[in-house]
Amino acid sequence: MSSKKVYLIVAQPNKTSLSHASFESIKKGLETAGHEVKTLDLYAENFNPVLIFDDNKRRRDLQYDTEMQVYREAVLWADHLIFVFPIWWSGMPAILKGFIERVFAKGFAYEYDSNMNIKGLLKNKSAWIVTLYDAPGIVRFVPFIIHDYGIVLKNQVLRSCGIKKIKYYRISSLLRSNPEKRNKWLKKLYELAVKL
Amino acid sequence: MSSKKVYLIVAQPNKTSLSHASFESIKKGLETAGHEVKTLDLYAENFNPVLIFDDNKRRRDLQYDTEMQVYREAVLWADHLIFVFPIWWSGMPAILKGFIERVFAKGFAYEYDSNMNIKGLLKNKSAWIVTLYDAPGIVRFVPFIIHDYGIVLKNQVLRSCGIKKIKYYRISSLLRSNPEKRNKWLKKLYELAVKL
Repeated sequence: MSSKKVYLIVAQPNKTSLSHASFESIKKGLETAGHEVKTLDLYAENFNPVLIFDDNKRRRDLQYDTEMQVYREAVLWADHLIFVFPIWWSGMPAILKGFIERVFAKGFAYEYDSNMNIKGLLKNKSAWIVTLYDAPGIVRFVPFIIHDYGIVLKNQVLRSCGIKKIKYYRISSLLRSNPEKRNKWLKKLYELAVKL
Repeated sequence: MSSKKVYLIVAQPNKTSLSHASFESIKKGLETAGHEVKTLDLYAENFNPVLIFDDNKRRRDLQYDTEMQVYREAVLWADHLIFVFPIWWSGMPAILKGFIERVFAKGFAYEYDSNMNIKGLLKNKSAWIVTLYDAPGIVRFVPFIIHDYGIVLKNQVLRSCGIKKIKYYRISSLLRSNPEKRNKWLKKLYELAVKL
Protein backbone atom coordinates (compact mmCIF):
# COMPACT_ATOMS: atom_id res chain seq x y z
CA MET A 1 0.00 0.00 0.00
CA SER A 2 1.33 3.40 -0.91
CA SER A 3 1.23 6.27 1.53
CA LYS A 4 -1.57 8.75 1.02
CA LYS A 5 -2.00 12.41 1.81
CA VAL A 6 -5.08 12.88 3.96
CA TYR A 7 -6.87 16.09 4.96
CA LEU A 8 -8.87 15.29 8.09
CA ILE A 9 -11.50 17.85 9.11
CA VAL A 10 -13.65 17.91 12.24
CA ALA A 11 -16.53 20.26 13.10
CA GLN A 12 -17.73 19.89 16.70
CA PRO A 13 -17.29 22.40 19.54
CA ASN A 14 -16.97 19.92 22.37
CA LYS A 15 -13.48 18.42 22.67
CA THR A 16 -14.83 15.59 24.83
CA SER A 17 -17.49 14.59 22.27
CA LEU A 18 -17.62 11.34 20.37
CA SER A 19 -16.96 13.36 17.21
CA HIS A 20 -13.56 14.36 18.57
CA ALA A 21 -12.85 10.84 19.76
CA SER A 22 -13.73 9.66 16.25
CA PHE A 23 -11.39 12.23 14.77
CA GLU A 24 -8.58 11.03 17.05
CA SER A 25 -9.21 7.35 16.25
CA ILE A 26 -9.05 8.03 12.54
CA LYS A 27 -5.90 10.13 12.95
CA LYS A 28 -4.18 7.39 14.93
CA GLY A 29 -5.16 4.77 12.37
CA LEU A 30 -3.88 6.87 9.47
CA GLU A 31 -0.60 7.59 11.20
CA THR A 32 -0.16 3.93 12.16
CA ALA A 33 -0.50 3.04 8.48
CA GLY A 34 2.11 5.63 7.52
CA HIS A 35 -0.18 8.09 5.80
CA GLU A 36 0.61 11.77 5.80
CA VAL A 37 -2.11 13.66 7.69
CA LYS A 38 -3.09 17.31 7.80
CA THR A 39 -5.81 18.09 10.31
CA LEU A 40 -8.31 20.90 10.57
CA ASP A 41 -10.41 21.44 13.68
CA LEU A 42 -12.79 24.16 12.49
CA TYR A 43 -13.78 25.21 16.00
CA ALA A 44 -10.20 25.29 17.33
CA GLU A 45 -9.26 27.29 14.22
CA ASN A 46 -12.04 29.76 15.04
CA PHE A 47 -13.11 29.43 11.42
CA ASN A 48 -15.44 32.19 10.22
CA PRO A 49 -18.16 30.49 8.15
CA VAL A 50 -19.86 33.62 6.85
CA LEU A 51 -19.51 33.90 3.07
CA ILE A 52 -19.55 37.51 1.94
CA PHE A 53 -19.84 38.92 -1.56
CA ASP A 54 -21.45 42.00 -2.99
CA ASP A 55 -21.07 44.51 -5.80
CA ASN A 56 -17.50 45.32 -4.71
CA LYS A 57 -16.29 41.90 -3.60
CA ARG A 58 -17.48 39.97 -6.64
CA ARG A 59 -18.68 36.44 -6.44
CA ARG A 60 -16.43 35.33 -9.30
CA ASP A 61 -13.37 36.46 -7.32
CA LEU A 62 -14.12 34.30 -4.28
CA GLN A 63 -11.82 31.60 -5.66
CA TYR A 64 -8.90 34.00 -5.03
CA ASP A 65 -9.89 34.92 -1.45
CA THR A 66 -6.50 34.82 0.30
CA GLU A 67 -8.08 34.04 3.67
CA MET A 68 -9.16 30.68 2.25
CA GLN A 69 -5.88 29.94 0.47
CA VAL A 70 -4.42 27.71 3.17
CA TYR A 71 -7.53 25.49 3.07
CA ARG A 72 -7.58 25.36 -0.72
CA GLU A 73 -3.93 24.32 -0.78
CA ALA A 74 -4.65 21.54 1.69
CA VAL A 75 -7.58 20.31 -0.43
CA LEU A 76 -5.40 20.29 -3.55
CA TRP A 77 -2.53 18.61 -1.68
CA ALA A 78 -4.73 15.79 -0.39
CA ASP A 79 -5.47 12.47 -2.06
CA HIS A 80 -8.21 11.85 0.45
CA LEU A 81 -10.55 14.14 2.39
CA ILE A 82 -12.28 13.14 5.61
CA PHE A 83 -15.12 15.11 7.20
CA VAL A 84 -16.16 14.23 10.76
CA PHE A 85 -19.22 16.01 12.14
CA PRO A 86 -22.44 15.67 14.12
CA ILE A 87 -25.77 15.93 12.33
CA TRP A 88 -27.61 19.03 13.50
CA TRP A 89 -31.06 19.74 12.08
CA SER A 90 -30.51 17.02 9.47
CA GLY A 91 -27.29 18.45 8.10
CA MET A 92 -23.83 19.87 8.57
CA PRO A 93 -23.11 22.29 11.42
CA ALA A 94 -23.09 25.88 10.15
CA ILE A 95 -19.33 26.11 10.63
CA LEU A 96 -18.81 23.27 8.15
CA LYS A 97 -21.50 24.47 5.74
CA GLY A 98 -19.68 27.81 5.67
CA PHE A 99 -16.34 26.08 5.13
CA ILE A 100 -17.82 24.49 2.00
CA GLU A 101 -19.34 27.80 0.89
CA ARG A 102 -16.10 29.74 1.32
CA VAL A 103 -13.48 27.18 0.24
CA PHE A 104 -15.21 25.24 -2.56
CA ALA A 105 -15.74 28.30 -4.72
CA LYS A 106 -16.52 28.33 -8.43
CA GLY A 107 -13.29 28.30 -10.41
CA PHE A 108 -11.57 26.30 -7.68
CA ALA A 109 -13.84 23.32 -7.05
CA TYR A 110 -16.23 23.47 -10.01
CA GLU A 111 -17.25 25.36 -13.11
CA TYR A 112 -20.31 25.54 -15.27
CA ASP A 113 -20.13 24.35 -18.86
CA SER A 114 -21.94 26.17 -21.66
CA ASN A 115 -25.16 24.28 -20.86
CA MET A 116 -24.98 25.37 -17.21
CA ASN A 117 -24.11 21.87 -16.13
CA ILE A 118 -21.75 21.73 -13.20
CA LYS A 119 -18.25 20.36 -13.94
CA GLY A 120 -16.05 19.22 -11.06
CA LEU A 121 -12.45 20.43 -10.93
CA LEU A 122 -11.12 18.29 -8.06
CA LYS A 123 -9.74 15.19 -9.70
CA ASN A 124 -8.18 11.97 -8.42
CA LYS A 125 -9.39 12.41 -4.89
CA SER A 126 -11.49 10.23 -2.64
CA ALA A 127 -13.38 11.10 0.54
CA TRP A 128 -15.01 9.81 3.68
CA ILE A 129 -17.96 11.38 5.42
CA VAL A 130 -18.26 10.38 9.06
CA THR A 131 -21.43 11.54 10.82
CA LEU A 132 -22.72 11.23 14.36
CA TYR A 133 -26.37 11.60 15.17
CA ASP A 134 -28.05 11.88 18.56
CA ALA A 135 -31.52 10.77 17.53
CA PRO A 136 -32.57 7.43 16.11
CA GLY A 137 -31.26 6.56 12.65
CA ILE A 138 -32.66 7.74 9.38
CA VAL A 139 -36.38 7.19 9.11
CA ARG A 140 -36.62 6.12 5.52
CA PHE A 141 -39.75 6.00 3.38
CA VAL A 142 -41.46 8.83 5.20
CA PRO A 143 -42.38 10.85 2.14
CA PHE A 144 -42.22 14.39 3.48
CA ILE A 145 -38.91 13.94 5.26
CA ILE A 146 -35.78 14.82 3.34
CA HIS A 147 -32.81 12.70 4.29
CA ASP A 148 -29.82 14.94 4.30
CA TYR A 149 -27.77 13.58 7.19
CA GLY A 150 -24.55 14.13 5.24
CA ILE A 151 -25.86 12.93 1.90
CA VAL A 152 -25.98 16.45 0.52
CA LEU A 153 -22.26 16.80 1.26
CA LYS A 154 -21.65 13.50 -0.52
CA ASN A 155 -23.85 13.80 -3.57
CA GLN A 156 -24.35 17.47 -4.21
CA VAL A 157 -21.11 18.95 -2.93
CA LEU A 158 -18.23 16.49 -3.29
CA ARG A 159 -19.56 14.63 -6.32
CA SER A 160 -20.34 17.89 -8.06
CA CYS A 161 -16.73 18.91 -7.45
CA GLY A 162 -15.40 15.78 -9.16
CA ILE A 163 -14.81 13.55 -6.13
CA LYS A 164 -16.48 10.29 -7.03
CA LYS A 165 -15.05 7.70 -4.63
CA ILE A 166 -16.84 8.57 -1.41
CA LYS A 167 -17.59 6.38 1.58
CA TYR A 168 -20.08 7.28 4.22
CA TYR A 169 -19.89 6.02 7.83
CA ARG A 170 -22.46 6.93 10.41
CA ILE A 171 -23.58 6.23 13.93
CA SER A 172 -26.99 7.19 15.27
CA SER A 173 -29.15 6.94 18.41
CA LEU A 174 -26.28 8.37 20.45
CA LEU A 175 -28.67 9.69 23.08
CA ARG A 176 -29.42 6.10 24.03
CA SER A 177 -26.04 4.55 23.36
CA ASN A 178 -23.63 2.97 25.81
CA PRO A 179 -19.82 2.86 26.15
CA GLU A 180 -19.65 -0.52 24.38
CA LYS A 181 -21.38 0.82 21.29
CA ARG A 182 -19.13 3.88 21.28
CA ASN A 183 -15.95 1.89 21.70
CA LYS A 184 -16.94 -0.48 18.93
CA TRP A 185 -17.50 2.51 16.65
CA LEU A 186 -14.12 4.05 17.52
CA LYS A 187 -12.36 0.73 16.93
CA LYS A 188 -14.10 0.37 13.58
CA LEU A 189 -12.95 3.83 12.51
CA TYR A 190 -9.38 3.10 13.64
CA GLU A 191 -9.34 -0.10 11.59
CA LEU A 192 -10.85 1.56 8.54
CA ALA A 193 -8.18 4.25 8.76
CA VAL A 194 -5.40 1.69 9.06
CA LYS A 195 -6.70 -0.02 5.91
CA LEU A 196 -7.22 3.14 3.84
CA MET B 1 -58.54 40.39 8.01
CA SER B 2 -56.87 40.91 11.32
CA SER B 3 -53.41 42.38 11.60
CA LYS B 4 -50.60 39.88 12.09
CA LYS B 5 -47.21 40.08 13.70
CA VAL B 6 -44.59 39.02 11.19
CA TYR B 7 -40.89 38.27 11.73
CA LEU B 8 -39.21 38.68 8.34
CA ILE B 9 -35.68 37.27 8.04
CA VAL B 10 -33.26 37.56 5.12
CA ALA B 11 -29.85 35.87 4.67
CA GLN B 12 -27.95 37.19 1.68
CA PRO B 13 -24.77 39.31 1.74
CA ASN B 14 -25.45 41.34 -1.39
CA LYS B 15 -27.83 44.22 -0.83
CA THR B 16 -28.47 44.52 -4.58
CA SER B 17 -29.44 40.84 -4.92
CA LEU B 18 -32.85 39.54 -5.86
CA SER B 19 -33.07 38.08 -2.35
CA HIS B 20 -32.97 41.58 -0.89
CA ALA B 21 -35.43 42.87 -3.48
CA SER B 22 -37.71 39.97 -2.50
CA PHE B 23 -37.35 40.89 1.16
CA GLU B 24 -38.29 44.50 0.37
CA SER B 25 -41.29 43.48 -1.75
CA ILE B 26 -42.62 41.29 1.01
CA LYS B 27 -42.04 44.01 3.61
CA LYS B 28 -43.88 46.57 1.50
CA GLY B 29 -46.79 44.20 0.95
CA LEU B 30 -47.05 43.39 4.64
CA GLU B 31 -46.97 47.05 5.65
CA THR B 32 -49.52 47.96 3.00
CA ALA B 33 -51.85 45.39 4.51
CA GLY B 34 -51.34 46.82 7.98
CA HIS B 35 -49.38 43.96 9.46
CA GLU B 36 -46.80 44.61 12.15
CA VAL B 37 -43.34 43.68 10.85
CA LYS B 38 -40.05 43.00 12.59
CA THR B 39 -37.16 42.46 10.23
CA LEU B 40 -33.85 40.70 10.62
CA ASP B 41 -31.08 41.00 8.03
CA LEU B 42 -28.61 38.41 9.31
CA TYR B 43 -25.69 39.85 7.35
CA ALA B 44 -26.39 43.47 8.33
CA GLU B 45 -26.72 42.25 11.93
CA ASN B 46 -23.29 40.62 11.63
CA PHE B 47 -24.88 37.51 13.12
CA ASN B 48 -22.40 34.96 14.44
CA PRO B 49 -23.68 31.54 13.33
CA VAL B 50 -21.18 29.42 15.24
CA LEU B 51 -22.93 27.32 17.89
CA ILE B 52 -20.66 26.59 20.82
CA PHE B 53 -21.16 24.18 23.68
CA ASP B 54 -18.81 22.03 25.70
CA ASP B 55 -18.35 20.58 29.18
CA ASN B 56 -18.63 24.06 30.73
CA LYS B 57 -21.22 25.68 28.50
CA ARG B 58 -23.73 22.85 28.55
CA ARG B 59 -25.92 22.01 25.64
CA ARG B 60 -29.05 21.96 27.81
CA ASP B 61 -28.42 25.59 28.79
CA LEU B 62 -28.33 26.90 25.22
CA GLN B 63 -32.02 27.81 25.49
CA TYR B 64 -30.97 30.50 28.02
CA ASP B 65 -28.13 31.98 25.93
CA THR B 66 -28.69 35.72 26.47
CA GLU B 67 -27.03 36.59 23.17
CA MET B 68 -29.93 34.85 21.39
CA GLN B 69 -32.66 36.27 23.61
CA VAL B 70 -33.69 39.11 21.28
CA TYR B 71 -34.22 36.60 18.43
CA ARG B 72 -36.13 34.18 20.65
CA GLU B 73 -38.42 36.99 21.79
CA ALA B 74 -39.10 37.97 18.20
CA VAL B 75 -39.94 34.36 17.30
CA LEU B 76 -42.32 34.11 20.24
CA TRP B 77 -43.85 37.50 19.44
CA ALA B 78 -44.56 36.58 15.82
CA ASP B 79 -47.68 34.95 14.42
CA HIS B 80 -45.87 34.36 11.16
CA LEU B 81 -42.21 33.78 10.27
CA ILE B 82 -40.75 34.45 6.84
CA PHE B 83 -37.32 33.24 5.74
CA VAL B 84 -35.86 34.66 2.52
CA PHE B 85 -32.60 33.15 1.30
CA PRO B 86 -30.63 31.89 -1.70
CA ILE B 87 -29.96 28.16 -2.06
CA TRP B 88 -26.24 27.47 -1.72
CA TRP B 89 -25.02 23.90 -2.08
CA SER B 90 -28.62 22.69 -1.94
CA GLY B 91 -29.45 24.34 1.35
CA MET B 92 -29.48 27.32 3.64
CA PRO B 93 -26.50 29.69 3.78
CA ALA B 94 -24.32 28.93 6.81
CA ILE B 95 -25.40 32.16 8.50
CA LEU B 96 -29.03 30.99 8.47
CA LYS B 97 -28.19 27.40 9.38
CA GLY B 98 -26.34 28.78 12.40
CA PHE B 99 -29.28 31.04 13.28
CA ILE B 100 -31.45 27.91 13.47
CA GLU B 101 -28.81 26.05 15.47
CA ARG B 102 -28.38 28.85 18.01
CA VAL B 103 -31.94 30.20 18.33
CA PHE B 104 -34.12 27.09 17.96
CA ALA B 105 -32.58 25.33 20.94
CA LYS B 106 -34.04 22.40 22.82
CA GLY B 107 -36.31 23.66 25.59
CA PHE B 108 -37.22 26.71 23.52
CA ALA B 109 -38.34 25.33 20.17
CA TYR B 110 -38.72 21.60 20.88
CA GLU B 111 -38.34 18.88 23.46
CA TYR B 112 -38.04 15.12 23.39
CA ASP B 113 -40.77 13.03 24.92
CA SER B 114 -39.99 9.87 26.87
CA ASN B 115 -39.78 7.85 23.63
CA MET B 116 -37.24 10.29 22.21
CA ASN B 117 -39.78 11.62 19.76
CA ILE B 118 -39.42 15.29 19.04
CA LYS B 119 -42.21 17.55 20.33
CA GLY B 120 -42.59 21.07 18.95
CA LEU B 121 -43.02 23.97 21.38
CA LEU B 122 -43.82 26.79 18.94
CA LYS B 123 -47.59 26.83 18.68
CA ASN B 124 -50.08 28.83 16.64
CA LYS B 125 -47.55 30.12 14.19
CA SER B 126 -47.33 29.87 10.44
CA ALA B 127 -44.35 30.39 8.13
CA TRP B 128 -43.20 31.09 4.60
CA ILE B 129 -39.97 29.90 3.11
CA VAL B 130 -38.85 31.94 0.12
CA THR B 131 -35.85 30.57 -1.78
CA LEU B 132 -33.84 31.78 -4.75
CA TYR B 133 -31.72 29.46 -6.79
CA ASP B 134 -29.17 30.28 -9.49
CA ALA B 135 -29.17 26.92 -11.23
CA PRO B 136 -32.06 25.18 -12.97
CA GLY B 137 -34.93 24.01 -10.78
CA ILE B 138 -35.04 20.89 -8.74
CA VAL B 139 -34.10 17.82 -10.73
CA ARG B 140 -36.60 15.38 -9.35
CA PHE B 141 -36.51 11.62 -9.65
CA VAL B 142 -32.74 11.44 -9.81
CA PRO B 143 -32.30 8.81 -7.14
CA PHE B 144 -28.94 9.79 -5.66
CA ILE B 145 -29.74 13.48 -5.40
CA ILE B 146 -31.25 14.74 -2.17
CA HIS B 147 -33.60 17.62 -2.65
CA ASP B 148 -33.03 19.96 0.21
CA TYR B 149 -33.48 23.35 -1.39
CA GLY B 150 -35.26 24.63 1.70
CA ILE B 151 -37.33 21.53 2.35
CA VAL B 152 -35.21 20.59 5.35
CA LEU B 153 -36.05 23.95 6.92
CA LYS B 154 -39.73 23.30 6.23
CA ASN B 155 -40.10 19.66 7.21
CA GLN B 156 -37.35 18.89 9.66
CA VAL B 157 -36.86 22.23 11.39
CA LEU B 158 -40.09 24.23 11.46
CA ARG B 159 -42.50 21.29 11.48
CA SER B 160 -40.49 19.61 14.23
CA CYS B 161 -40.83 22.81 16.25
CA GLY B 162 -44.61 22.74 15.95
CA ILE B 163 -45.12 25.11 13.01
CA LYS B 164 -47.43 23.22 10.70
CA LYS B 165 -48.85 25.84 8.33
CA ILE B 166 -45.91 26.48 6.04
CA LYS B 167 -45.86 27.73 2.49
CA TYR B 168 -42.90 27.46 0.23
CA TYR B 169 -42.20 29.86 -2.65
CA ARG B 170 -39.21 29.51 -4.91
CA ILE B 171 -37.62 30.84 -8.02
CA SER B 172 -34.85 29.01 -9.91
CA SER B 173 -32.66 29.31 -13.02
CA LEU B 174 -31.70 32.83 -11.98
CA LEU B 175 -28.44 32.63 -13.91
CA ARG B 176 -30.48 32.62 -17.09
CA SER B 177 -33.35 34.81 -16.02
CA ASN B 178 -34.36 38.22 -17.32
CA PRO B 179 -35.78 41.40 -15.75
CA GLU B 180 -39.34 40.42 -16.72
CA LYS B 181 -39.10 37.13 -14.83
CA ARG B 182 -37.61 38.90 -11.81
CA ASN B 183 -40.22 41.63 -11.78
CA LYS B 184 -43.02 39.11 -12.05
CA TRP B 185 -41.58 37.25 -9.06
CA LEU B 186 -41.30 40.45 -6.98
CA LYS B 187 -44.86 41.43 -7.86
CA LYS B 188 -46.09 37.96 -6.89
CA LEU B 189 -44.36 38.21 -3.50
CA TYR B 190 -45.80 41.67 -2.92
CA GLU B 191 -49.32 40.43 -3.65
CA LEU B 192 -48.90 37.34 -1.47
CA ALA B 193 -47.75 39.58 1.36
CA VAL B 194 -50.71 41.92 0.93
CA LYS B 195 -53.04 38.92 1.13
CA LEU B 196 -51.38 37.25 4.13
